[in-house]
Amino acid sequence: MTTTMTTLKGQPLDRLAVDGLLRRRMFYTPSFDIYGGISGLFDYGPPGTALQSNILDVWRKHFVLEDNVLEVDCTVLTPHIVFKTSGHVDRFSDWMCKDPKSGVIMRADHFVEDVLEARLRGDKEARGQATSQTQKDPKRAAKAKAKGHTAVKLDDAVVQEYESVLAQIDNYDDKGLAALIQKYDLRCASGELPTPPVAFNLMFKTSIGPSSNTPGYLRPETAQGQFLNFAKLLEFNQNVMPFASASIGKSYRNEISPRGGLLRVRELSIVSSLKLAAYSNRFHQVENVELELLPRETQLSGKTNTTRMSIGKAVADGIVDNETLGYFLARINLFLQKIGVDPKKTRFRQHLAHYACDCWDAELLTSSGWVECVGCADRSAYDLSVHSKQTEKPLLVRQQLEQPRTVTSWEIDLNRKLFGPLFKKNARAVEAVLMAASQEQRESFGKELESTGKVVIDVAELGPVEINNDVLKCELRTSSQNVREYIPNVIEPSFGIGRIIFALCEHNYWVREGDEARSVLSFPPIVAPTKVLIVPLSNDKKFLPYMDQIGQKLRNAQISSRVDVSSATIGKRYSRNDELGTALGVTVDFQTLKDGSITLRDRDTTRQVRADQDKVLAAIQEIVNGGKTWADIENDLPAFTGQDQ
Amino acid sequence: MTTTMTTLKGQPLDRLAVDGLLRRRMFYTPSFDIYGGISGLFDYGPPGTALQSNILDVWRKHFVLEDNVLEVDCTVLTPHIVFKTSGHVDRFSDWMCKDPKSGVIMRADHFVEDVLEARLRGDKEARGQATSQTQKDPKRAAKAKAKGHTAVKLDDAVVQEYESVLAQIDNYDDKGLAALIQKYDLRCASGELPTPPVAFNLMFKTSIGPSSNTPGYLRPETAQGQFLNFAKLLEFNQNVMPFASASIGKSYRNEISPRGGLLRVRELSIVSSLKLAAYSNRFHQVENVELELLPRETQLSGKTNTTRMSIGKAVADGIVDNETLGYFLARINLFLQKIGVDPKKTRFRQHLAHYACDCWDAELLTSSGWVECVGCADRSAYDLSVHSKQTEKPLLVRQQLEQPRTVTSWEIDLNRKLFGPLFKKNARAVEAVLMAASQEQRESFGKELESTGKVVIDVAELGPVEINNDVLKCELRTSSQNVREYIPNVIEPSFGIGRIIFALCEHNYWVREGDEARSVLSFPPIVAPTKVLIVPLSNDKKFLPYMDQIGQKLRNAQISSRVDVSSATIGKRYSRNDELGTALGVTVDFQTLKDGSITLRDRDTTRQVRADQDKVLAAIQEIVNGGKTWADIENDLPAFTGQDQ
Repeated sequence: MTTTMTTLKGQPLDRLAVDGLLRRRMFYTPSFDIYGGISGLFDYGPPGTALQSNILDVWRKHFVLEDNVLEVDCTVLTPHIVFKTSGHVDRFSDWMCKDPKSGVIMRADHFVEDVLEARLRGDKEARGQATSQTQKDPKRAAKAKAKGHTAVKLDDAVVQEYESVLAQIDNYDDKGLAALIQKYDLRCASGELPTPPVAFNLMFKTSIGPSSNTPGYLRPETAQGQFLNFAKLLEFNQNVMPFASASIGKSYRNEISPRGGLLRVRELSIVSSLKLAAYSNRFHQVENVELELLPRETQLSGKTNTTRMSIGKAVADGIVDNETLGYFLARINLFLQKIGVDPKKTRFRQHLAHYACDCWDAELLTSSGWVECVGCADRSAYDLSVHSKQTEKPLLVRQQLEQPRTVTSWEIDLNRKLFGPLFKKNARAVEAVLMAASQEQRESFGKELESTGKVVIDVAELGPVEINNDVLKCELRTSSQNVREYIPNVIEPSFGIGRIIFALCEHNYWVREGDEARSVLSFPPIVAPTKVLIVPLSNDKKFLPYMDQIGQKLRNAQISSRVDVSSATIGKRYSRNDELGTALGVTVDFQTLKDGSITLRDRDTTRQVRADQDKVLAAIQEIVNGGKTWADIENDLPAFTGQDQ
Repeated sequence: MTTTMTTLKGQPLDRLAVDGLLRRRMFYTPSFDIYGGISGLFDYGPPGTALQSNILDVWRKHFVLEDNVLEVDCTVLTPHIVFKTSGHVDRFSDWMCKDPKSGVIMRADHFVEDVLEARLRGDKEARGQATSQTQKDPKRAAKAKAKGHTAVKLDDAVVQEYESVLAQIDNYDDKGLAALIQKYDLRCASGELPTPPVAFNLMFKTSIGPSSNTPGYLRPETAQGQFLNFAKLLEFNQNVMPFASASIGKSYRNEISPRGGLLRVRELSIVSSLKLAAYSNRFHQVENVELELLPRETQLSGKTNTTRMSIGKAVADGIVDNETLGYFLARINLFLQKIGVDPKKTRFRQHLAHYACDCWDAELLTSSGWVECVGCADRSAYDLSVHSKQTEKPLLVRQQLEQPRTVTSWEIDLNRKLFGPLFKKNARAVEAVLMAASQEQRESFGKELESTGKVVIDVAELGPVEINNDVLKCELRTSSQNVREYIPNVIEPSFGIGRIIFALCEHNYWVREGDEARSVLSFPPIVAPTKVLIVPLSNDKKFLPYMDQIGQKLRNAQISSRVDVSSATIGKRYSRNDELGTALGVTVDFQTLKDGSITLRDRDTTRQVRADQDKVLAAIQEIVNGGKTWADIENDLPAFTGQDQ
């Protein structure tokens, strides 16, 4: 079902080549590598760090600055009670099982996936169809073979059953996974059946303070800090609704056995934003933005073809639940395009589960298939409600109504002169039960008092208590309210920056054919780790003052540059920087010594122009700030073809 | 000894008023406040987050961009072995003691400080001198009184002894602190002596992966990730030395009982940079920068007066150890001034302990006295050496020498024809011991072989082993080397962003006198959380299109702005934004409806100018980018005095 992944120029994408480049050029590297590393933990090297920081910068301008969002920076360390209340302590877990012979611990759903996928590959081989995965990844094929997954043909019905299981693998719980393991006799590498799946909570535990009586966790998401600060943020916003908050920071998930490089890590950069509102008031600005949508209905019918549609139509047709959600989906799409994600490798997939409100993921196509990179969830009023209940602090909006509204409700009156003496020291307990009664209960009190002249209520400490209608009245009354109190609904887009970086690298990768095939990462200048390479034609010392001067001018304009004075040929030095995604190259040569002119090279076309320093620096600024393209610069400045490539 | 803290305008600083403002305006807020909070954990609200992010932005431009530093982003989660090797597991701890009656846990040095300081305050009171701290902080005085620290006069000699203990409180270990507690009979709040001090490691522990066999820590500093990546960074830098790396991120310290708000927290933003070099090659650019220095010698003589001196002279006179260190101290000073730290409240203090190489702290004066905000340590080759030894990976520089150099050393030669048959299966073990011999050992081998014809060496598995001079030769030889191998020295400046933010707020705080005293935070525009406030004169709907237009133009220029359409008077709205440190205010009024002109207000002088939109926007850009000051703008544009303040 997976689409074959291609490079930016449509060439078949060699995932090992891209990954090799990313490691060789230190975009990323396994953490503690000299100590053997730990799976799921990676460091970003200089180009990866710059790429990440440029992406976050664009994110801040696109979301925070543009929508006047309230950005907060909350702690990662979080006490137990917060995640107990939010439900993470009880539910934020994966199913884990073990190979009883080797002791290897596995994520149960991944184990089932692995074995079934291996059988399906074996079936394809037996039918004489080479699989794309074994074609692409000979190591994987060899490993599958070593595990004994050789070419065995399956019944057509079995193939269909396996594929149906794989399509909904996310929906099985421990019992479901155990049943699959039994039914299909799924065996570990050792040949044994794995142990039954048990829940493993994915939060990292720690202890805050010296007495170890404050257990805590590293947050697995950035949203809770925003929820807990809701009342203060609303006040900061001068009680104006709707408003949005945002948070950029790390989150932690103790994955059972992470694999897949940057796609599944234990320490994540997550950017999340909460929009607290019924409806966005800026939806009209984006309603014509077109998205590739994969709605729930399409998926349930077993298909994966997307529908291209304006977000305005998607909301009008009820495919996307509401305008706030629609506004975010469109803004997410615009953001992804701005940083250089390939629109043809972007889709929005609706969640199947509909116990929650409407959720959509922005998925990006990678060499590992479609990967969720941005989640956009309607969290309703759930989090604010549970925290408010647990802390007994009101987390709500008091809205002054322009038109008072009429409210009808059952109200309780106590005749206090009689009530106190009647129940004496139990009076408070009895009153608490009465006051906590719901509208339904109050209605039945009212009716019983009318028909029998008394009610019997249950007070925990006392058992049944009878109250007469001379002490208690319960009546349906109509009143006029000027203020509406409500707990707002929350829409949360949440961006996995590491996954976006990985997809972005694959989307911008291509191979320049020539005497020697050379890799290029064609990032848009706005996110390119380094904007300008400065090279001298040779290591003649006369070039140095010019290079210093250009470097200083670029720094003054706050444009990042690197100098390469290595002894490699100028072609090799350009090549290295094409792999680093450096957008532009400036060369100082012997002509520079004569007239001060320098050349400017475009990474993607390798074409060059030549002009005096100030004109070239102006051109660089225009390209980096997005005001002009290379084609514009070629119109403005004379072409140059002199130097050796 | 502490200098009395003043505001930006020299008024006595009311620390409670500043702290009240910072909390009220949500610069920061206790984390999980609705759950009662946890000491040492704070969230930044919108203005605090923007301030932090602007400071980091300036930091990146000042250090990373200017010096072509290699920025990396390493994980916080770190396995045990890394911090075992670095020495943090054994030594990164504070001394902890307990009140045996109440069970309250205290940091032992803080406990000693508290009791001695309380006694000194009591002494001053008894001598009729009001102390500045009780004057400033009536709550503290009341608390001291409640603890029974009333006015008791001490002998002059005792006062001197207490003051001497307090001056070097950082240098006591567990035994030293226990001795002080005994000697001075220091009592807990309960009246008991505390339990003896024991070491408490300050790293947060956790467990990585599901099987809990990978214990780990949250890093307490950001330097280790840079050390571990040393070899890759050197390669990335094309083996050019010196180079520098940098890392911006969170660090964690499980403080025993944190107090002091933002000054002592458990989750810190730390920015660190490592410079790997013998000497900086850009020292000449900063040699005239003047610093307030407090050298070791001055401190040891019991004084705290600083000496103003150019860094060039300080290095030449041997006060600062070397140019690399000097370069960083000067650059740190320039950075602090750029973000708005008061130069008169900045000093550089040399560490007293000289077991390490030369270390200096940039200290900022706050209402809690002088506070270390930037550390600048010469870490020598320690960290690289221990990690290299533990992992057996070479973490060194191979420098191609322009002139080959002559090296004389004792070299070992084995006659392999005899050696193998002689020791058979033990040959490898014997050879390993020989090859591991130091130059001193080899020298003694050589001399023994010459005098006795044999040596006896100790091989762990075999015991003493005798080797004759027909098998083993050991000679002093002279050779010529083209490559020098060495482990580089490291200078590490490390910035505590939270402390810098706290000091910056106090340094920029002042009170505008008038009918009503009003607080102002006069941040430089470059770091101000919001650059521009946009207000309509009244809530007349006619003003809205102008405000939208101005907001959009500012966003296009990537200048942050906020709109205030609340019903408060325009004076109140300006006031609120003076507390938020908003640099400029734009007002739309009835004149705007006639001719499109708007007014621009300066936060610090409250003066205004009036011009058409484009001129005002150009002025805003020039102020925000640091090209012009308000005085320049007043020269360019006509003054305006019309609106009600």
